[in-house]
Amino acid sequence: MSQVTCDIAVSIDGFGAGPNQSLENPIGEGVEKLHRWMFEAAEENAAELEAITAAGAYVMGRNMFGPGRGEWDEAWRGWWGDDPPYHAPVFVLTHHARAPLEMQGGTTFTFVTDGIESALAQASAAAGDRDVAIAGGASTVNQYLAAGAIDELRLHVVPLILGAGERLFDGVSRIDLEPLDVRRTDLVTHLRYRVPAGDRA
Amino acid sequence: MSQVTCDIAVSIDGFGAGPNQSLENPIGEGVEKLHRWMFEAAEENAAELEAITAAGAYVMGRNMFGPGRGEWDEAWRGWWGDDPPYHAPVFVLTHHARAPLEMQGGTTFTFVTDGIESALAQASAAAGDRDVAIAGGASTVNQYLAAGAIDELRLHVVPLILGAGERLFDGVSRIDLEPLDVRRTDLVTHLRYRVPAGDRA
Repeated sequence: MSQVTCDIAVSIDGFGAGPNQSLENPIGEGVEKLHRWMFEAAEENAAELEAITAAGAYVMGRNMFGPGRGEWDEAWRGWWGDDPPYHAPVFVLTHHARAPLEMQGGTTFTFVTDGIESALAQASAAAGDRDVAIAGGASTVNQYLAAGAIDELRLHVVPLILGAGERLFDGVSRIDLEPLDVRRTDLVTHLRYRVPAGDRA
Repeated sequence: MSQVTCDIAVSIDGFGAGPNQSLENPIGEGVEKLHRWMFEAAEENAAELEAITAAGAYVMGRNMFGPGRGEWDEAWRGWWGDDPPYHAPVFVLTHHARAPLEMQGGTTFTFVTDGIESALAQASAAAGDRDVAIAGGASTVNQYLAAGAIDELRLHVVPLILGAGERLFDGVSRIDLEPLDVRRTDLVTHLRYRVPAGDRA
């Protein structure tokens, strides 16, 4: 059955991105370590990386797609080059309308200006029987968690106290989760939880 | 070699206690689940519980010893009854001087009014070759983390988003940790980290 998943890399103190995000540092200063496991230990973390890319469609916040506040010029086509790693429809939350972007390898970026429910509905329709993944960043994940829309939360906890940045779980009220499994590799510990439907808002 | 350890139970969103702490709810409202694993699954979590009680001396904040702001009357002898589970010297950080309390089973409570360094020095002297444990709560742990005084941090992560309370890591600047191990039981996931000395303030 199709479900809504969310993978997010966080520091031990719960930050999904560092402070002072910019074009040069799209995930903030000093936090490249948050994502190093994906690139430097792809084999060791293959199962988790495969789960991330298995979704049939993705939803992401505007900060994950580009710098600034979403007023990208037409030349901006995301952080990932011509062939982004999604290979599926991606719905980007923004306040600025834009025509869809068809990329190489099956990724299309569709810009959604009418809110998180609309983006999730469009992604669900596009995904069919496959899962829909909330791709981040933290503030987008927080909105979907608060709305009770996520079925499975997969935290990739990096051994780092960051002290500042964009905090996962900000604005999310109490939810009792069901632990599914845990696995540690050298660079990251994977924690997987089910979010019970009954505890949702 | 003697080291400074810290065990603390936290929610997934990093709270070591809930909101609205009181005499009736010493760890805050609705968070009995944070500590349930210690009582309802003591056998399954025996290794971690033994590690907690192996220390030669303990340091705790005033909120962990009693309600209010430390102005306890002489009848207040802690939350634990006549035979507290520490069975060792415990140094309580407070602003109010008080004579030491000798309890049953080897626990003594000594009240320290001249700061966290003094409390740790006294605990280290009392522990001898054994470890010193920072027993909590979160704000006391944060002070010792920020001071670079903790060698091993043991997080007991309960599958619960709490949304409010006393936040672990508040006021702690960036520290890169070394993961030691991880173990999941039904009620809690244990994450153990070394805090490298070179990264301390």
